[in-house]
Amino acid sequence: MSARLSDVVAKIAEPDENVRRSTQELLDRKTKPRRSLGRIEDLACQIAAIRGTTEPGVLAPAVVLAAGDHGIAEEGVSAYPQEVTGQMLLNFASGGAAICVLAAQAGARLVVVDAGTASDVAHPDIRDRRVGRGTANSTRGPAMSAADATRSLEIGIELVDELVAEGIGVIGIGEMGIANSASAAAVCAALLPANPEQVCGRGTGIDDEGLARKVDAVTRALQANPTPGDGSATLAGVGGFEIGVIAGVVLGAASRRVPVVLDGFITGAAALIAARIAPACVGSMIASHRSTEPGHRLVLEELGLDPLLQLDLRLGEGSGAALALPLVASSLAILSDMATFDQAGVTDAGA
Amino acid sequence: MSARLSDVVAKIAEPDENVRRSTQELLDRKTKPRRSLGRIEDLACQIAAIRGTTEPGVLAPAVVLAAGDHGIAEEGVSAYPQEVTGQMLLNFASGGAAICVLAAQAGARLVVVDAGTASDVAHPDIRDRRVGRGTANSTRGPAMSAADATRSLEIGIELVDELVAEGIGVIGIGEMGIANSASAAAVCAALLPANPEQVCGRGTGIDDEGLARKVDAVTRALQANPTPGDGSATLAGVGGFEIGVIAGVVLGAASRRVPVVLDGFITGAAALIAARIAPACVGSMIASHRSTEPGHRLVLEELGLDPLLQLDLRLGEGSGAALALPLVASSLAILSDMATFDQAGVTDAGA
Repeated sequence: MSARLSDVVAKIAEPDENVRRSTQELLDRKTKPRRSLGRIEDLACQIAAIRGTTEPGVLAPAVVLAAGDHGIAEEGVSAYPQEVTGQMLLNFASGGAAICVLAAQAGARLVVVDAGTASDVAHPDIRDRRVGRGTANSTRGPAMSAADATRSLEIGIELVDELVAEGIGVIGIGEMGIANSASAAAVCAALLPANPEQVCGRGTGIDDEGLARKVDAVTRALQANPTPGDGSATLAGVGGFEIGVIAGVVLGAASRRVPVVLDGFITGAAALIAARIAPACVGSMIASHRSTEPGHRLVLEELGLDPLLQLDLRLGEGSGAALALPLVASSLAILSDMATFDQAGVTDAGA
Repeated sequence: MSARLSDVVAKIAEPDENVRRSTQELLDRKTKPRRSLGRIEDLACQIAAIRGTTEPGVLAPAVVLAAGDHGIAEEGVSAYPQEVTGQMLLNFASGGAAICVLAAQAGARLVVVDAGTASDVAHPDIRDRRVGRGTANSTRGPAMSAADATRSLEIGIELVDELVAEGIGVIGIGEMGIANSASAAAVCAALLPANPEQVCGRGTGIDDEGLARKVDAVTRALQANPTPGDGSATLAGVGGFEIGVIAGVVLGAASRRVPVVLDGFITGAAALIAARIAPACVGSMIASHRSTEPGHRLVLEELGLDPLLQLDLRLGEGSGAALALPLVASSLAILSDMATFDQAGVTDAGA
């Protein structure tokens, strides 16, 4: 582990349980039956505990969307050709993709990061942080070097530093990369652990033959890269550059007491890597939704996270995270803006 | 049924299935794997079908929050005293309640309606549409006259007319009224039908004894008011003024092709009354969430509605509807703002 990474890991603390309790007490004085806002109250309490204050106020949101290409795409594990990663990066930067629309709806800044695509793409609204030009095919050896795995994590940490300096207080994470659900499946199979069959799904929409090829490719990637359950080693062996960057964002956010809103299966795999590197970072995670990918449920269970939404999403890009951001904002507004029984002159039955 | 009501019922049409299919085809050309936004796509298609156009655009949202008092409160079925209904009406108008915060977060206009409270409350931001000063105790006879039931429905219809004239395009519904979960339980028991035990929950937070009193009171209310499964007659026998107003909002919205976003169990009971009066209005309903009240699941199943959220809410006020409005807005933005594969120059695998 690099000195930079060690420093960040050392700074990650669990959410403050005293603040969590005090926040619930504040909510209990608001003009509503106790706990009647259910998980919205839990969310407010969790965010307060992460921030370490019963008055977290309004948190400016961003969605960090990292893209990368995957050598395992050669194995025919995706319904789309690899060129689509670069094409979609331009679409993200141009405002035409789903995440552009959903981030705008949530009032969130969209931060588009090229973590390592194979295509030549350039756009003023794409942050070029390429660790490489796509990973190597993990069925034949490591997807990336140990140094590149560390570099991808550090890029994520640096992104959080920049965003926090710019006033961002909550970060949704998203990803894009043709074949990255195969890499994510390999990561989860290695770290949960699980069988490839349990964590391989249809991704963007492969058929039965494609799914069989995907299970086979993931099986071979795991054989080619026997990992010791270590987050960084698994990232290097079977992960992806954007997966590493997102794991770094999770670590960086946790070290800065910034809540991080997960998206689907691939961000779940990145979160699992982060959790293996620094278990305390799980306290800073908010699960936005549970996707239709079969492995996502296993990852969320392993992390002990209960998703806010179940809308049969399977897009990625941070789309589920963006859809959950209004719930985050609403939970904080309930905490800051509602009247107490005393303030409103409403009889409190204390129920 | 009054001439006014008959006229509205006659205007209610099912959503346009051709528009629904055409809208899905439009979504299938957007830069994402087919159907990868799951229920967000369903929502866009449903709203388009309700509006009768594949280009519904942006719909300005409102939350109609109707309050009323209930004679059945005398039976000790609530954790809170009746005075709280009026106190909360003032809180709604003053901006201190949960729904004020949540409607503001959703960018929705909050329309506070006094449908029939027992307290003397007056505030420029409360629309005084009192049908009476609280209903009669339904364990001893009808909660209201047939004429008052019709009047409450007509008030809801008139509210929709006003809101549509003011440019509102989607309406969330909410309610408040001490003991109204007992009235809603009686309505659902009569119309589903179901046993009182199946539809009585803890409402704002009654204990086991309170719950037993509630089941007993609902049982006696049903005995005192044998209803023939008729929506209006059930409303008069065991309903409430705000329940009638909300049922009227549902009917009015459906007749104007305005999607209506339900809230919890009590708005579900109102929606059930509306559905018995005009079955086609169900097509205009969007279920925001499923609450912890046991009867809510039964109502949603009867109406064939799958809620968008499950956040263990049990507040009412339209809080769940307000929390779901950003999903409505996002679904429409996906439809209007996303690029197609052709526009973005992205390879379409047609998956």
